[in-house]
Amino acid sequence: MKKPASPDVGKSSNVVWHAGHVSRADRERLNGHRGVVLWFTGLSGSGKSTIANAVELRLHQQGCHTYVCDGDNIRHGLNGDLGFSPTDRVENIRRIAEVAKLFMDAGMIILTAFISPYRADRARARERVPPGDFIEVYCRCPLEVCEQRDVKGMYRRARAGEIKEFTGISAPYEEPEAAEVVLNTHQQSQEECVEAVVGYLRRAGVLAAKPA
Amino acid sequence: MKKPASPDVGKSSNVVWHAGHVSRADRERLNGHRGVVLWFTGLSGSGKSTIANAVELRLHQQGCHTYVCDGDNIRHGLNGDLGFSPTDRVENIRRIAEVAKLFMDAGMIILTAFISPYRADRARARERVPPGDFIEVYCRCPLEVCEQRDVKGMYRRARAGEIKEFTGISAPYEEPEAAEVVLNTHQQSQEECVEAVVGYLRRAGVLAAKPA
Repeated sequence: MKKPASPDVGKSSNVVWHAGHVSRADRERLNGHRGVVLWFTGLSGSGKSTIANAVELRLHQQGCHTYVCDGDNIRHGLNGDLGFSPTDRVENIRRIAEVAKLFMDAGMIILTAFISPYRADRARARERVPPGDFIEVYCRCPLEVCEQRDVKGMYRRARAGEIKEFTGISAPYEEPEAAEVVLNTHQQSQEECVEAVVGYLRRAGVLAAKPA
Repeated sequence: MKKPASPDVGKSSNVVWHAGHVSRADRERLNGHRGVVLWFTGLSGSGKSTIANAVELRLHQQGCHTYVCDGDNIRHGLNGDLGFSPTDRVENIRRIAEVAKLFMDAGMIILTAFISPYRADRARARERVPPGDFIEVYCRCPLEVCEQRDVKGMYRRARAGEIKEFTGISAPYEEPEAAEVVLNTHQQSQEECVEAVVGYLRRAGVLAAKPA
């Protein structure tokens, strides 16, 4: 815990103030693992949210401190004011990246599960945190399979023209070129996908780390 | 951990998906305390950030999982696109409230330290979380004392007309009418302030709770 030399409130007549500070490293030490951003990306229906939740469950059972940000808790809250225009989509991902950074700074393993179809947006999210702290997890799944699953009926509506600029149908998905983890979610079992992500975290020293 | 009956990605030919879910209660059990929002409010220079950091340090030393949101990590990140117009100020507090809610849902004790001068904004922040989970901490300090401290030289600039709509000088501060904790930061020592907040958390069952 760092104690800055000069307190940031100063002294009043009878009160001495000391500025204490809990650092990211302090929180990581308490948690027993590093804070990182696990950034899931992929088409709608590719399994991002399901795998992110399954990874979280596994990590939680191992005593890790985790949180999942996905449409359920972001779209109706923080980003409830945003629509789906190009500008709003960029802002959507920007805010999610900033929130992920805060959680990482809090020493947590934060999992984000959003289509995030544009390389530039994902690159900006990556640049916001130190090297090694952003782990891109690409849920690779053929469009046909996602469309066949169509869990939320979105593809059908997109094909019918009811949803404009739908990723994969009427808007592009830019595949990651160097994702840290690639999951072939139409071929691998959920268990295999979870193991691939957790194995990466283990090898990268995220789980074993005992920060100095 | 709840396991919804129907997985939300469905089945492809050879893959069975199970939707697992880690709840707020699961995370609170892991942490050994409840997640809550500690919302510090008060004039610039009233000690919000210093006390929030001191409370965090004390809680961290007790093994609690904590994070402080203040101007340092919010204004240049998540809210870096916002200025100080009335609309932007409302949006500033709205986003902070949403982020605080996410951290609380993650089982953490999240401390926010912003002037947040308007009752309506604070009331909206409170309404976003269940009753008892929002703890307003009013750092009460006479304007003269804050102005005398003037740590950042803001009051001088506000008096000189260089900063428009500065809270306390040219914009109102609406005092909390029913804050859970009131600190007289010009009279109480930092240690007393910290103890007042931590004592409240103890009495409210935040620290002792072992969620079922």
